[in-house]
Amino acid sequence: MSATEIPVEKNVPGRQDALDLFERIRALSFDGVGVSRESYGPSETACLEALVEWAGRHGIVADTDPAANVIFRLPDGGAQAPVVCGSHVDSVPQGGNYDGLAGVIAGLLCLKRLKDEGVRLPHPLWVAAMRGEESAWFGKAYMGSGAILGKLKPEDLELKNKRSGRTLAQAMASVGADVDAIAAGKPVPWVGGVRNYLELHIEQGPLMVARKWPTAIVSGIRGNIRHNHVQCLGEPGHSGAVPRWLRNDAVFAVSDLLMRLDEHWRVLLERGNDLVVTAGVMGTDPAEHAVSRIPGKVDFSFEVRSESTETLEEFYRVMRAECDAVARQRGVRFEFDRRIESAPATMDPEVVKVLLEASKEAGEPVERIPSGAGHDAALFANAGIPSGMIFIRNENGSHNPAEAMEIDDFMAGVDVLYRALPRLG
Amino acid sequence: MSATEIPVEKNVPGRQDALDLFERIRALSFDGVGVSRESYGPSETACLEALVEWAGRHGIVADTDPAANVIFRLPDGGAQAPVVCGSHVDSVPQGGNYDGLAGVIAGLLCLKRLKDEGVRLPHPLWVAAMRGEESAWFGKAYMGSGAILGKLKPEDLELKNKRSGRTLAQAMASVGADVDAIAAGKPVPWVGGVRNYLELHIEQGPLMVARKWPTAIVSGIRGNIRHNHVQCLGEPGHSGAVPRWLRNDAVFAVSDLLMRLDEHWRVLLERGNDLVVTAGVMGTDPAEHAVSRIPGKVDFSFEVRSESTETLEEFYRVMRAECDAVARQRGVRFEFDRRIESAPATMDPEVVKVLLEASKEAGEPVERIPSGAGHDAALFANAGIPSGMIFIRNENGSHNPAEAMEIDDFMAGVDVLYRALPRLG
Repeated sequence: MSATEIPVEKNVPGRQDALDLFERIRALSFDGVGVSRESYGPSETACLEALVEWAGRHGIVADTDPAANVIFRLPDGGAQAPVVCGSHVDSVPQGGNYDGLAGVIAGLLCLKRLKDEGVRLPHPLWVAAMRGEESAWFGKAYMGSGAILGKLKPEDLELKNKRSGRTLAQAMASVGADVDAIAAGKPVPWVGGVRNYLELHIEQGPLMVARKWPTAIVSGIRGNIRHNHVQCLGEPGHSGAVPRWLRNDAVFAVSDLLMRLDEHWRVLLERGNDLVVTAGVMGTDPAEHAVSRIPGKVDFSFEVRSESTETLEEFYRVMRAECDAVARQRGVRFEFDRRIESAPATMDPEVVKVLLEASKEAGEPVERIPSGAGHDAALFANAGIPSGMIFIRNENGSHNPAEAMEIDDFMAGVDVLYRALPRLG
Repeated sequence: MSATEIPVEKNVPGRQDALDLFERIRALSFDGVGVSRESYGPSETACLEALVEWAGRHGIVADTDPAANVIFRLPDGGAQAPVVCGSHVDSVPQGGNYDGLAGVIAGLLCLKRLKDEGVRLPHPLWVAAMRGEESAWFGKAYMGSGAILGKLKPEDLELKNKRSGRTLAQAMASVGADVDAIAAGKPVPWVGGVRNYLELHIEQGPLMVARKWPTAIVSGIRGNIRHNHVQCLGEPGHSGAVPRWLRNDAVFAVSDLLMRLDEHWRVLLERGNDLVVTAGVMGTDPAEHAVSRIPGKVDFSFEVRSESTETLEEFYRVMRAECDAVARQRGVRFEFDRRIESAPATMDPEVVKVLLEASKEAGEPVERIPSGAGHDAALFANAGIPSGMIFIRNENGSHNPAEAMEIDDFMAGVDVLYRALPRLG
């Protein structure tokens, strides 16, 4: 049977394996509320060990790389440059079981299915079970893929675990990583030959539930521009004694700004741009606010995300221009802290095309979706490795115990992944 | 010389007396930053004693009423029902020297001028130097005028001074007030025959500075409707992962609401309504807000003030209707705490007319202005005593040491007050 003639069947092989693996690892890392798999901690290691044990039972080889990540492959996979499929096994504290782990298990199920079905790929499949993706523990995300790609900085290694106080270097060393090589920015040897990087992940937003898409193909990973602290400064005053035309009300000014941005946002979406805008933090100053006082100061945060650097920059310019307009019209001024930015990551158009073809073949939606959250895939993509992602429908977001991926949706995604493999290269 | 033939002259008699009195009392109550004249405290008493001493030197009689307020009059003022002119002598901590005190000194200057000029009024002038108007000390305003009018409740008398912990009853007793009579709601004897109540007061807003009006006549004292705590409840979410059409963003919803109210406010002003609208307190929940989190909850306060009960109720209905509209359109809901209201006080049309005529005669602006802040005059007016107020231009608001009334503006107001007296009744 050749790799390009896989029949469309909804009873995707490996369903019971998936249920067993998810349940076993959930039990290993259950914390009484959700799951906790600490980056470079014992529960993360226990999870990897369970995966290695399962792999061994099914004739899959596991190697640990110098950054303490585990790479799975078939013994007879061939010596060509591999396609790597992976994700992370750590979780946030009291998190959900699927964020990260689903992508690793998906890869393992593909390896087993390749073996069971005797399929030989043009490029061998390697599955990377990575450590340390969640920023919840050390205040930094993508440590595992960062170490693989030689992108961790010595100062990153000095970051401290928010709970134990142990440094990232100490935690990495405790699980056998070569901290000196990581500190030197040396990529792990295996990453040099990687042909493509693929990652299956649960969606962390509600779009696929709303659209009724079990799976979708990620078009890109949104970058962002942020100001953590913007101040709008007006003039405090007695709420009863100052008429409308003499007010410099900071709350009304910020509300005005946000409604202007809301309208620009709406128009940019209608023009087909990818964009989300958020003011996650906002407030009058508790030291001076009162029900009968015209607020003279409002602090707020600003964040714009887009797959497109141009859209980010365009919206940022619009935001600053509207601040100027509101300042003039309402007699306030805006003060900005440092602008922080993170570049968007583009998924490789060829890989996206292959994943969409595989979706069609599997009878799943042929749909693109942007990823608003960051992923290890962004690091591989920005390191020049053509990458792609499959999203799985998931209720209730992620980073909480209520995340709810249906096993049938997951298996549909595994099927898309499996059908994509022979088409790559 | 008859009372109706006072010549227009800008060198109003009493200027040096005013400067001396303000300076003497400022020195008595200076606290290192501003002035502090504690309601029913020693600094308030010292201020009254200084006024009594000055009055004695100028042949003005002073009596203390059962609520420990001081009433000044000319010995030969006649036995008819008096016109009472007054204000309060207390201040907020680290406050300004003119808020309250200006109205008492204005009355005293009128008594002295009546005596010096040998003018006999149709109704005698009494000047009430009241205690306890500021809410800063016991958390309740208008205690002095409330006691005069029999409007203090027994539970008010149990309120504690925020600094000393002493109850209002104890503080009142310590300055000689008949606390039993006050607790029984007995008005003081003198108030029964009062014909009119007049109060000169500094403006606490910036309108008269902006309009270049040294004096203006108060048309009414704004009432208000408030909610101290309104919650807007949306749905928290990952800022990158939720598209615009699936967001239930509480910050955008409240901003939308405020911009709708701002527009209604503008339109109602154009139709000639008196109205101010304030959200003095606003904020996302510090327990859950984050730069990359769609805010699921915003707390804010709502206050509308107007001279007109109808306008208050109309704007309140508009506000609730707009909440419903925003709730539907943005997928949020609004939860309101108890509605709190305070009725507007109408200045007597005849008294306002007399004060405007006196303004014209004095060569001052013939202008009406609403009072946004509350005053003792509101209690007299709402007790059925035809009342009026003269506002004096004042920079930098009140309740702070930077309040800045020019002595020439004050004397202009005294002149308006003086010219109004013979016209009353």
